[in-house]
Amino acid sequence: MKIKQIGGEFALIGKIRKNTRLYSKDAIVGIGDDAAVLKYDKKNFLLFTTDMLVENDHFSLKYSTPCQIGMKAMEQNVSDIAAMGGLPKHAVVSLALPNDIDVGFVDNLYKGINEKCKRYKISVVGGNITHSKEIVINVSMLGLAEKKYLALRSKAKIGDLIFCSGDVGKSAAGLELLRNGMKGGSVKPHLEPKSRLELARKLVKTGVNSMIDVSDGVASEVRHICSESKVGALIYADRLPISKTTADDSKKLKKNALDFALYGGEDFELVFTASKNKLKQLKKMDVSAIGEIVGKKNGVKLVKDNKKLSLGSGFDHFKRLRV
Amino acid sequence: MKIKQIGGEFALIGKIRKNTRLYSKDAIVGIGDDAAVLKYDKKNFLLFTTDMLVENDHFSLKYSTPCQIGMKAMEQNVSDIAAMGGLPKHAVVSLALPNDIDVGFVDNLYKGINEKCKRYKISVVGGNITHSKEIVINVSMLGLAEKKYLALRSKAKIGDLIFCSGDVGKSAAGLELLRNGMKGGSVKPHLEPKSRLELARKLVKTGVNSMIDVSDGVASEVRHICSESKVGALIYADRLPISKTTADDSKKLKKNALDFALYGGEDFELVFTASKNKLKQLKKMDVSAIGEIVGKKNGVKLVKDNKKLSLGSGFDHFKRLRV
Repeated sequence: MKIKQIGGEFALIGKIRKNTRLYSKDAIVGIGDDAAVLKYDKKNFLLFTTDMLVENDHFSLKYSTPCQIGMKAMEQNVSDIAAMGGLPKHAVVSLALPNDIDVGFVDNLYKGINEKCKRYKISVVGGNITHSKEIVINVSMLGLAEKKYLALRSKAKIGDLIFCSGDVGKSAAGLELLRNGMKGGSVKPHLEPKSRLELARKLVKTGVNSMIDVSDGVASEVRHICSESKVGALIYADRLPISKTTADDSKKLKKNALDFALYGGEDFELVFTASKNKLKQLKKMDVSAIGEIVGKKNGVKLVKDNKKLSLGSGFDHFKRLRV
Repeated sequence: MKIKQIGGEFALIGKIRKNTRLYSKDAIVGIGDDAAVLKYDKKNFLLFTTDMLVENDHFSLKYSTPCQIGMKAMEQNVSDIAAMGGLPKHAVVSLALPNDIDVGFVDNLYKGINEKCKRYKISVVGGNITHSKEIVINVSMLGLAEKKYLALRSKAKIGDLIFCSGDVGKSAAGLELLRNGMKGGSVKPHLEPKSRLELARKLVKTGVNSMIDVSDGVASEVRHICSESKVGALIYADRLPISKTTADDSKKLKKNALDFALYGGEDFELVFTASKNKLKQLKKMDVSAIGEIVGKKNGVKLVKDNKKLSLGSGFDHFKRLRV
């Protein structure tokens, strides 16, 4: 049986999770959130996450500079730590490189990594280098979250409003432009995505109930929150924050910007839920209310043109062509 | 310039290390040991390590079962934690898999991972799955080491004896047998290497000055200790622990068992140094005295047939053919 046939990446993760055991009470949250939550000290939890970038799957040397690849490898891990409400601290980096690669590639990749380390005050404390046919970069990151600020996927409550930060769909639109040899404002957000660490910190201080970062599209992230929190959701299609640039680029591509936002991924924005009484405070921030949490039996629905449609799944690495 | 031309994997790591900054006092030891050492609590340090296995470089599906690959992915990280004197606690696992791979492969890979988790009481708390041409498995692991037991590469002292645990060269001999379609007792140690966690704990309680695990051959590990400790070393060729099985298999292969021991790697044994007054206690354990630490200006030498030869480097992923 192929991975696609059992339902793709997330079905496989579900299968793995079922067979995994926690051997210590120090592991507070294991598989199933943006980062693991581990015991640390009286005030803080330790956060532990990992992400892999594979050549021709997550990036192509046709489109990205080595520096941009290094930056992205860091940003996607920072985004995971941000989505937990924490701050990144330490990272280890594994590289697999083809034999004939130029040392300059590694220098520039690390230029990107070190630039992000400086920005976020992250120390690279280890790693390893090995050999492969395609370039692979794996970053694992540790962070700290004050216990009172920890944000999980599993704490959404019925009646919560669902929010999305910044604007979404830009990364997927940018990739589509690149694939078609076209130009547009969405290209840069695809090549140099930025996590929302500062905003995430403001949000947890304001008080959110659940949070996740946008790795695989808003649809997928809302589904994760609902599945972990055992609730349903209504997402209003016309409320999804899509920038004019993304809309224009989508038009150029003869594609639907809403699809990029819902199913595209890698925007590294935040999707979160908060109780209605936080709305006034949240309205002052770079976030949009896009829906609400409802009972589980209602499912996860997209409201479009006054119709309730079933919301599809997000981006799945086993269901699409490579870059 | 190619990686091979600047001196291979370790030269590249040296270059990266030089440009890396530690942004926090919480990072006590960064790049340059088996694991990073981070602040944890009054009694313990947190250890953080990562290792990647790449298909056709670290393993081949011609030789290894998926279960064996999963076990090896865990053992090599446990070995890093062991070499620091600590105990493994939590792991995250990144997988990159070809599109057409069978779900059974992942089930069996995780059978191996979970078997080692059970043995060492390690909790897998996260990970991610993505797509690639070749199978890549990256494990990052956290461990704890009591401050008084922490073993570093950098604390070897002039006059220390150098020891090696168990026997070495078996993994390289086993790989060579497999490559030549031959059988022998070294095949199993290659396919199912075992870290020396229990022994490492005994050693740090006895009192070692420096320690490292055998990932790339004894020569490379002694060189690492010497370079981090700013000392030299004499290794006595006839004292290297080589089992009868490894010697017999080497003979079959018309190869020198000493070369496998010095330059082979992946034995996951321990190389460590301790002051002479520990010899009596250490003699009761599964270790052999193989040399001594001398002043830096003496260099790192192999004593063979009463001649002092310059000791070569260890295994380098950029200097050999694939599996």
